[in-house]
Amino acid sequence: MGKKTDIFKKERLSLNEIVLNYSEKNIKRFFSLDRQVYEDGALPKKTKELLGLVASIVLRCDDCIQYHLIECFSIGVTSDEISEAISISLIVGGSITIPHIRRAFETWDELVNNK
Amino acid sequence: MGKKTDIFKKERLSLNEIVLNYSEKNIKRFFSLDRQVYEDGALPKKTKELLGLVASIVLRCDDCIQYHLIECFSIGVTSDEISEAISISLIVGGSITIPHIRRAFETWDELVNNK
Amino acid sequence: MGKKTDIFKKERLSLNEIVLNYSEKNIKRFFSLDRQVYEDGALPKKTKELLGLVASIVLRCDDCIQYHLIECFSIGVTSDEISEAISISLIVGGSITIPHIRRAFETWDELVNNK
Amino acid sequence: MGKKTDIFKKERLSLNEIVLNYSEKNIKRFFSLDRQVYEDGALPKKTKELLGLVASIVLRCDDCIQYHLIECFSIGVTSDEISEAISISLIVGGSITIPHIRRAFETWDELVNNK
Amino acid sequence: MGKKTDIFKKERLSLNEIVLNYSEKNIKRFFSLDRQVYEDGALPKKTKELLGLVASIVLRCDDCIQYHLIECFSIGVTSDEISEAISISLIVGGSITIPHIRRAFETWDELVNNK
Amino acid sequence: MGKKTDIFKKERLSLNEIVLNYSEKNIKRFFSLDRQVYEDGALPKKTKELLGLVASIVLRCDDCIQYHLIECFSIGVTSDEISEAISISLIVGGSITIPHIRRAFETWDELVNNK
Repeated sequence: MGKKTDIFKKERLSLNEIVLNYSEKNIKRFFSLDRQVYEDGALPKKTKELLGLVASIVLRCDDCIQYHLIECFSIGVTSDEISEAISISLIVGGSITIPHIRRAFETWDELVNNK
Repeated sequence: MGKKTDIFKKERLSLNEIVLNYSEKNIKRFFSLDRQVYEDGALPKKTKELLGLVASIVLRCDDCIQYHLIECFSIGVTSDEISEAISISLIVGGSITIPHIRRAFETWDELVNNK
Repeated sequence: MGKKTDIFKKERLSLNEIVLNYSEKNIKRFFSLDRQVYEDGALPKKTKELLGLVASIVLRCDDCIQYHLIECFSIGVTSDEISEAISISLIVGGSITIPHIRRAFETWDELVNNK
Repeated sequence: MGKKTDIFKKERLSLNEIVLNYSEKNIKRFFSLDRQVYEDGALPKKTKELLGLVASIVLRCDDCIQYHLIECFSIGVTSDEISEAISISLIVGGSITIPHIRRAFETWDELVNNK
Repeated sequence: MGKKTDIFKKERLSLNEIVLNYSEKNIKRFFSLDRQVYEDGALPKKTKELLGLVASIVLRCDDCIQYHLIECFSIGVTSDEISEAISISLIVGGSITIPHIRRAFETWDELVNNK
Repeated sequence: MGKKTDIFKKERLSLNEIVLNYSEKNIKRFFSLDRQVYEDGALPKKTKELLGLVASIVLRCDDCIQYHLIECFSIGVTSDEISEAISISLIVGGSITIPHIRRAFETWDELVNNK
């Protein structure tokens, strides 16, 4: 896996430790829920990760976008599928999402070319 | 199809006529793009409508939610699939989406019980 | 309690029943978390309801605002306290919050004059 | 002036009275600032009302949109100018703004046909 | 006070000078209002800083979060109180706030361990 | 043109190439629309760039703000006009926009002092 996504994953782990140090019980319960909603169910994990990706783009959160792109890549989502999911995000969210979409494709390009 | 979704669809059509009366060319081009991104492609229409639904819930737009629920229903998305897509929207978007989720399930219930 | 807040509470209960009918387990768990974070703890319930109110105003959700105003009123928050919490919401969130603030004071006025 | 904009203006005045009843000094100061930023200056009032309109559309506030449309109409902004300002709002804000744009053109149509 | 919060405060001061150079009178008046709403009143400054913190988290502004955490720390807000305020922000704002909450706890940890 | 805006423009070009590599047709069509809405029409390009600037500030997108400031500077918008457009953005969007406004004036200052 590429450089930027490597750094991202290390920082995420290290910050999560600080979060756990200070978090009261409801924060921990929420983090647990946040894992469970993406598990296979009536909808497959692949669709759910794409739902998480589109939600993250229209709400314009770079870290969340990067996280779901890494997940999508690891379960075999194709570049064409990513491109179509991003086109929906762009139409729904407008040009204000473009800077995030630029960085999303940069991350995706790194993932694709380092596998 | 149920009462509220009927009224919604009539109002939408009648307002779209006013929009077309006043719109310059770029608005019309955008409306055309807005239809095309949900068509079958690398991702099936069903997945795309669910992507549109989740984007609409986290951005909290009742009309957009209602539109995508009607589309989802018409192409055979199940209640379990809707429920899982909504649970992702709720976790990503937080409790501020709950009033919209209440109205989403109300619309879905009407669609399911009048088919 | 006044008319509008009465209608609000009835509709909320009736919609919550539909939500429960269709909700999978993670939605139900979230609803439970949503109750627990406002309970007395290191911060008193009163402060927490004001936190919920301000979050609801800057995110511009009328139903959420109305809910927290009813809670605030029922535990004895004063009009001066509400006014100061709303002034922070207005400064943080800007003039785009004004229509919601108008309706918030309308709800508060109804609560105060029907007690 | 048309029916819906008439009702809008009456409700706005009546709610503003309740707001003034409960507002502490900083809210009143903000309301005063909110009037002053739209006055003629280095930029003419017309440009400023269009800036207010576009900001209101991308932030998706129907009341704010309606207010700025009424102001724009009263100072002679043309339908072509409104249409181009709305097309920028649509491209920046995406399809999530469409329901608000429908209602915006409905309001504008009422203003144009009742003058 | 720790390193990151030190850098943050220096940059903020230096940028504020540029802002004052270019700002017309209404911007200056707003900056003055922005200070006054957090002063002791019917609600104590401590509650008001927590209101500012929660508003900043749900609107996802790292600089604003950092500012209010520094203020909270300087007036003796405890880690348990911060954790409960953050749990409300997380429930209201959803998982999209998590990257900001990670950085918030990182800032808080720095403040606590360098006092 | 100054340093930061230079780096910004280079990165933008390099990322746009990656975007084009992966984009399906609807993304490309949107990018084309995104250029056309700012062209001279019933409203002059200058007004349209100011509309784009204000929309970018209230939606809080640093890259978009920087882009429109560069465009505004290149077509002769004055510092007084920028300041008034920013004051409207601040009043509409609230204090949550201040960190973006600080960086906006920093960019503008660089543009003005390096021409």
